[in-house]
Amino acid sequence: MQLDLSADVVTLTRQLVDTFSVSHHEQEIADAVEEALRTLPHLTVTRRGHTVVARTDLGRAERVVVAGHLDTVPLNDNLPSRLEDGVLHGLGTCDMKGGDAVMLKLAADLAEPNRDLTFIFYEAEEVDSVHNGLRKLTESDPDLLEADFAILMEPSNAAIEAGCQGTMRVDVRTTGERAHSARSWKGVNAIHRAAPVLARLNDYVAREPEIDGLTYHEGLNATGIRGGVAGNVVPDECVVEVNFRFAPDRSEADAEAYVRAFFDGFEVTVTDMAAGALPGLDRPAAKAFVDAVGGEPAPKFGWTDVAQFTKLGVPAVNFGPGDPMFAHKQDEHVPVEHVERCERILKEWLS
Amino acid sequence: MQLDLSADVVTLTRQLVDTFSVSHHEQEIADAVEEALRTLPHLTVTRRGHTVVARTDLGRAERVVVAGHLDTVPLNDNLPSRLEDGVLHGLGTCDMKGGDAVMLKLAADLAEPNRDLTFIFYEAEEVDSVHNGLRKLTESDPDLLEADFAILMEPSNAAIEAGCQGTMRVDVRTTGERAHSARSWKGVNAIHRAAPVLARLNDYVAREPEIDGLTYHEGLNATGIRGGVAGNVVPDECVVEVNFRFAPDRSEADAEAYVRAFFDGFEVTVTDMAAGALPGLDRPAAKAFVDAVGGEPAPKFGWTDVAQFTKLGVPAVNFGPGDPMFAHKQDEHVPVEHVERCERILKEWLS
Repeated sequence: MQLDLSADVVTLTRQLVDTFSVSHHEQEIADAVEEALRTLPHLTVTRRGHTVVARTDLGRAERVVVAGHLDTVPLNDNLPSRLEDGVLHGLGTCDMKGGDAVMLKLAADLAEPNRDLTFIFYEAEEVDSVHNGLRKLTESDPDLLEADFAILMEPSNAAIEAGCQGTMRVDVRTTGERAHSARSWKGVNAIHRAAPVLARLNDYVAREPEIDGLTYHEGLNATGIRGGVAGNVVPDECVVEVNFRFAPDRSEADAEAYVRAFFDGFEVTVTDMAAGALPGLDRPAAKAFVDAVGGEPAPKFGWTDVAQFTKLGVPAVNFGPGDPMFAHKQDEHVPVEHVERCERILKEWLS
Repeated sequence: MQLDLSADVVTLTRQLVDTFSVSHHEQEIADAVEEALRTLPHLTVTRRGHTVVARTDLGRAERVVVAGHLDTVPLNDNLPSRLEDGVLHGLGTCDMKGGDAVMLKLAADLAEPNRDLTFIFYEAEEVDSVHNGLRKLTESDPDLLEADFAILMEPSNAAIEAGCQGTMRVDVRTTGERAHSARSWKGVNAIHRAAPVLARLNDYVAREPEIDGLTYHEGLNATGIRGGVAGNVVPDECVVEVNFRFAPDRSEADAEAYVRAFFDGFEVTVTDMAAGALPGLDRPAAKAFVDAVGGEPAPKFGWTDVAQFTKLGVPAVNFGPGDPMFAHKQDEHVPVEHVERCERILKEWLS
């Protein structure tokens, strides 16, 4: 497959969509992207696995990273792409090959951008973070990620979604003593003991802090519950799986302390943790971008890879074509207007 | 295998124990029992599947059924039998080949009992009730079960345990609305909604009614709980599995009405129901047996096949060698003294 960077951004999106690239199968698309970028003399290209980085080096005062992942979730009878009434349908149209196509157009058409640019096309975002190409790059080549500002082209309705909330999972465990249910008074029922765990969750009042003018919204939810040995046994264990989504003004340590205090008196085990990302809209590079896009930035509630940049001290926002509500759906699609709008805004801002 | 009915009851127990008869593999043991019983001219023998019935027909004023199942739970490295310090160890010693051996001794030695006798050796008690040989007999040959009194030789420490409690299972279900846990306020968490279900179970106070001088003890317990779609989804369903053990003064309809009222406001589905059995110790035949055994009868908390007799209007008790706490255990065993005591008491009462 050969990409034609002189084609319009919608044609380019279709080419990318019709190149199968479910996670762990990114070789073909990464080869095509690398090959296309290597034809552009103003870019220095680096390949790591199926992650491709292309940089200008013009000695500009600022450097901006523009990043997008090349993989998709599994096929769901939604290929090849189909263009209908100004909407492009198909796997990866929304998440996030529309964004990737915009990146390719910027790379090809901006030989002399007003800020130095680093394009990162990366592998394996839709699977376990251990495979994530961007995360790997933060470890293998942190210098390639150095920048004053980063734009992650995840679908956000062609508007700015800033920062992201952190996510933490804990198991809240109650214990008891087994007994035959015909003589239940000889045991202690661990499921009954979980009543106050659920009662506290019912009483939870979400914090909605304002950060850089954006209103975040925390959430504390049981996402699973399990307990039981057999139909005639008083169970000796019950586990409530809880997911805490926390605003980016909390550190991981804060989040953990909060949850432990919330479930005081119960056994709490942290099973997963990913810090949030502050919007960073007070930074000069971010401010300029917000002005260029216009409109009101929104807070990002879900966790995204912008947090990887925050860890490196680089302010980052989500800005990409497509409605995130349709990501991972069978009827995934992206409005052509979104893709064109993102291309136009970024070109203007970077010219 | 050939059973020697002239041997003592312990030797006979060992012969039965060493004849493998895990549920659905009762042919060999049923053949041996049938063959041995057919040598006794005072008995009329009927075979149904691997269930064997033997009856005297002396025109006595009363008829007593003595029943025991021939199957065992699965082998657990606990065969062959081992006799040590007056205790017989091995699969089925307690549940319930000690009782079966007593039955065989009564059948062989009581050619002219003072009450007509019906011995029922039945298959498949330890598995789904659809296979239960005694239950099948209540449908195919109810006349074979006609009696004034029934003794089920289930392990009960060689003492009388009267009646049995009923058991009922229900699913208590809460529903909600799915949402991504990053925007949890857009959904309704079904697990959180289960809080009052568990709270009510915590507040439950067990009824302990006295029936025929025996104190029963009800119980209402969550034996399982499940809910959850994925780690990042607010779940739309939670199911609490509840087991109600009810005293035999409640009918099935009473039990269901009680549980539905208890969980008023929640969706309740009955998944299993087995009525209890009244002790029936006020009946003349039962009274005479209690006097013969001596000591105080105890209430039976767990459900047993005595309920099959109650359904037919026949008062029934559990009376057999072995401690029921060791039934289904790897270290199952029966004290020789229990087996001998049951044989002696029954022979005296029936001579």
